[in-house]
Amino acid sequence: MHPEPTTIQLLGHATFKITTPEKKVILVDPWLFNNPYIPQGLEQQPVVDLMLVTHGHEDHMDIRLKELIDQSSPTIIANNICRRFLIEQGVDESLFEPMNLGGSLPVHDVTVTMVNAFHHAHVYLTEKTVTFPHAANGFVVRLSDGTTVYFAGDTCVFGDMQLIRELYQPTIAVLPIGGAP
Amino acid sequence: MHPEPTTIQLLGHATFKITTPEKKVILVDPWLFNNPYIPQGLEQQPVVDLMLVTHGHEDHMDIRLKELIDQSSPTIIANNICRRFLIEQGVDESLFEPMNLGGSLPVHDVTVTMVNAFHHAHVYLTEKTVTFPHAANGFVVRLSDGTTVYFAGDTCVFGDMQLIRELYQPTIAVLPIGGAP
Amino acid sequence: MHPEPTTIQLLGHATFKITTPEKKVILVDPWLFNNPYIPQGLEQQPVVDLMLVTHGHEDHMDIRLKELIDQSSPTIIANNICRRFLIEQGVDESLFEPMNLGGSLPVHDVTVTMVNAFHHAHVYLTEKTVTFPHAANGFVVRLSDGTTVYFAGDTCVFGDMQLIRELYQPTIAVLPIGGAP
Repeated sequence: MHPEPTTIQLLGHATFKITTPEKKVILVDPWLFNNPYIPQGLEQQPVVDLMLVTHGHEDHMDIRLKELIDQSSPTIIANNICRRFLIEQGVDESLFEPMNLGGSLPVHDVTVTMVNAFHHAHVYLTEKTVTFPHAANGFVVRLSDGTTVYFAGDTCVFGDMQLIRELYQPTIAVLPIGGAP
Repeated sequence: MHPEPTTIQLLGHATFKITTPEKKVILVDPWLFNNPYIPQGLEQQPVVDLMLVTHGHEDHMDIRLKELIDQSSPTIIANNICRRFLIEQGVDESLFEPMNLGGSLPVHDVTVTMVNAFHHAHVYLTEKTVTFPHAANGFVVRLSDGTTVYFAGDTCVFGDMQLIRELYQPTIAVLPIGGAP
Repeated sequence: MHPEPTTIQLLGHATFKITTPEKKVILVDPWLFNNPYIPQGLEQQPVVDLMLVTHGHEDHMDIRLKELIDQSSPTIIANNICRRFLIEQGVDESLFEPMNLGGSLPVHDVTVTMVNAFHHAHVYLTEKTVTFPHAANGFVVRLSDGTTVYFAGDTCVFGDMQLIRELYQPTIAVLPIGGAP
């Protein structure tokens, strides 16, 4: 019996869904609600094992993220500012694996590393109020079949992308190319 | 008829006024009120087309900035933390061109790029209260005559200044040399 | 008469005590209260001349820091977010030497330089409330006998560590190796 191949599916904008050889579902930068780029029929993602959030802007951290989390109680990895925001929103603290830049953790048959990024971020509490300012981060996800995906998140290009290549040897890089702020 | 040359005028400390070949006025890091370094007679700048703010410290973002903005309703580019602060202070949201690190935008006959910088910043709401913590940024401004000015803002030296040189090829660099915090 | 040698003592986790050739005591990232790693008998540090704080997490900036400061009124160097937090907690503003990334200052017979680091940080006000988000920093401390210590603080590895080596030529580097967030 052959293992299933890894699949990586673009759900529009910066949202990616990875299905691992072990059939685990990883959702990166979830934006499902009112995402105009999401392919029809994929707006619902009831089963998520691992959720990775690069920063708190609403096109990377869905404003209805708590509802999505409540559906399947995934493990969540986000920088500590976004993590605290979500906890204050009522998300169960035990779902989080705390991590900071340079940290690596084996979880759900993959290894997740949080890497640097350069992007001013914050959380929109309401249309008029912003808070929880923070810097964004990226992620490197290494799967059991050797597939290693670098999610740059939102960032300008920076020289230490070379260091990420050297240290984690990604086989696939997901880079931001849009001009949105 | 020859085009007018670009002029770059130091208004004291980190405040610069660029007059473009098209006679547009760009003000960078405006500190006009109580700036002890400003040349006499230049404290008033009633006509500004474009305003660039690298961070929210009061020697780069005038504490009376709203009054200055109200005089001429310039286009404003600032990182999203400073932008949200100014909007909360009553500045019209439509004046802003949202931009983040690595972003470039043609505006008023120049191209503005927001680049990385390393400096802990925040906004002084009162003498005793600070908030809106953020990282500073720099700017590269390319004019129609090819003059390209890199404003480093407040930052330590960093290796990716080399990347800024490679990507944007500034002809003039404005670098911080003071020791102020 | 020979000068006394510099001593560098690990007080557990990231807390270091330097005694300079001039007998001045420097405390770096003080965590004395409830620090499970601190050697017995060293929990009290009644005499401190200079205190350096890399970021506001409670394992680097003791939650009882004000009590420790009140004992000996040391000179304090911390980034401006941590500084403002401590001032709001009642620490005398005059104890601080304001400094930002790339800044250097001679103080108590040593030269302190604040250098870059990459680590999402904030201050725990209570178990449930976090605020004062900021980026961490590192320090380079040059002593009169030439000993030069680079305290990386909490950070991922980054290419500009090479720049720190070139500019400040540390003889000793204190690097984070734990996986804690």
